[in-house]
Amino acid sequence: MGGDFGPRVIVPALVKSLRKHPGVSALVFGDQLALAAALQNYADKALLPRIEPHFTDSVIAADDSPSTVIRSKRNSSMGLALSAVANGDAGACISAGHTSALMALGLVILKTLPGISRPAICATFPTSQGRSYILDLGANLECSPAQLSQFALLGSLTTQELDGIAQPRVRLLNVGKEPSKGNALIKQTADLLEAEPLINYCGYVEGDGIFQGSADVVVCDGFSGNVALKASEGVARMVSGMVKDLLRRSWLTRLGAAMLGGRLTALRSRLDPAQYNGAYLLGLNGVTVKSHGGADQIAFGHALDVAIEAAKHNLPDVLSSVLQGKIDHNQTK
Amino acid sequence: MGGDFGPRVIVPALVKSLRKHPGVSALVFGDQLALAAALQNYADKALLPRIEPHFTDSVIAADDSPSTVIRSKRNSSMGLALSAVANGDAGACISAGHTSALMALGLVILKTLPGISRPAICATFPTSQGRSYILDLGANLECSPAQLSQFALLGSLTTQELDGIAQPRVRLLNVGKEPSKGNALIKQTADLLEAEPLINYCGYVEGDGIFQGSADVVVCDGFSGNVALKASEGVARMVSGMVKDLLRRSWLTRLGAAMLGGRLTALRSRLDPAQYNGAYLLGLNGVTVKSHGGADQIAFGHALDVAIEAAKHNLPDVLSSVLQGKIDHNQTK
Repeated sequence: MGGDFGPRVIVPALVKSLRKHPGVSALVFGDQLALAAALQNYADKALLPRIEPHFTDSVIAADDSPSTVIRSKRNSSMGLALSAVANGDAGACISAGHTSALMALGLVILKTLPGISRPAICATFPTSQGRSYILDLGANLECSPAQLSQFALLGSLTTQELDGIAQPRVRLLNVGKEPSKGNALIKQTADLLEAEPLINYCGYVEGDGIFQGSADVVVCDGFSGNVALKASEGVARMVSGMVKDLLRRSWLTRLGAAMLGGRLTALRSRLDPAQYNGAYLLGLNGVTVKSHGGADQIAFGHALDVAIEAAKHNLPDVLSSVLQGKIDHNQTK
Repeated sequence: MGGDFGPRVIVPALVKSLRKHPGVSALVFGDQLALAAALQNYADKALLPRIEPHFTDSVIAADDSPSTVIRSKRNSSMGLALSAVANGDAGACISAGHTSALMALGLVILKTLPGISRPAICATFPTSQGRSYILDLGANLECSPAQLSQFALLGSLTTQELDGIAQPRVRLLNVGKEPSKGNALIKQTADLLEAEPLINYCGYVEGDGIFQGSADVVVCDGFSGNVALKASEGVARMVSGMVKDLLRRSWLTRLGAAMLGGRLTALRSRLDPAQYNGAYLLGLNGVTVKSHGGADQIAFGHALDVAIEAAKHNLPDVLSSVLQGKIDHNQTK
């Protein structure tokens, strides 16, 4: 159990989640003392049979390189949780630990889906229409057109399965909407996406278009995706702070705010990045969800929901069968 | 006079600006009929002596390539305005026309400052502390470490001059704060910035850090800068829409909003991207400001303010003397 807070945030979030999802049970991996204490503090008797603790004293350090992690940290809580998914003992792995370690161990333990060279970090974000998926958010800082095209396919198939959208609109993040805009990577990727029969490619989207709901899936390299996501979170947090400020200025403004019937508070909570915590490592052959390291109970609860949703849909199997079908089809051509 | 609306937005914005800045006069370039009509409609007698119209029928088309523009559109309103700056007849050129055309003509007519290979698009944006500068916002989609380092220097010198900050904190936009984060471009640029004595380089900043005011100058390539800017605008616009919605729901919420004393409206207006219209083409040897093509009167007025501020400071001369001093110093070493 990693992240900034470990079991004392994760266990209470898990307990809440198990109450919410009666059919779900959990394997938890972590340090014996901390984990046992958290379980004793937060889990009631009725829930304990649904929580199976596994203890380990192998800890991934902040400065462990991916190669160190692969070589000597497979018995860390992260490694054991991924192995449980690989063995079929668990339907999903959720971690608040280091992204690069999770990526490295995920690649070795779970491997990638057929035809996928690297997984992408994929999350949903709110739009004025509902929600959209964006990938990659930082796992692959430099991408080839073929990789971006794989991400597009992963995102599109995921949206079909989880959101029930038959033909998700896939767009490529760019600096303009016109076909002449963008660098060589973008233009070559656009050509690949146009030629891909499994994707409903709809052209470019600009940064502001992300939130207008003109795409169900936004595809980008990990550098620009990370920048877009964090810049958006930054604005949301700034505005949320302004609203908070406004609400406590004086009794008159507080009264005014009360007359808005909690709508300002609702606005603040809709802007709260914790709402959107939990990103898939999409393309691994097993559901793997990354929570923010600094997630609080509520935010970690969202990451659990994200993982449970994908596990219930057997997402990796669904993706795998389509991707394998595509490979078989291309081989018999 | 370009942009989506031409003289009927630009002329009234100019008239307002001339009233606000008594020492300023304007050369205006554009189509005779449209310009004369707008001047007749919006400018009063007292102001007319401060507006010098120049007519041209050469128009830059949406699909004109930069090479076409350079070859045959130097007599467009954009080309003539840039020439007026080059000749010393004007202190600044403001255009709502195509960025790529403005960049191409600016390079040919004004040239770059000493030691600067390409100009960058630079704008200010609000932070919780005040304002910061960010560049490049889309003129250079792929940059070398040397170019990013030039942008850092241009941004830092501009902040010193315009905002009176002695040692502006310069940061590089990246996907993490730790030195190990980022791609080769980022790491090589960080090395250059650390070695540059004219810059107070403070390390990496993430997308959300932009709005926390931890940097006075944020440096990035044009692709990620454009994505960050537009994603931020998108969130701001979405939130602004939510607030608007909230204000008109019912008489009770309207009354509540009224009791907030216009603070919600103030919040909305602080979120309005028009507030931040007007970006420098920094690195050209002459003040050149790009307005959004779709800018309305208020937004175009902001772009005029941006240009007037830089012209009053003789920004290109200030930058030029420092940059030339740096070249001379390196040559005598």
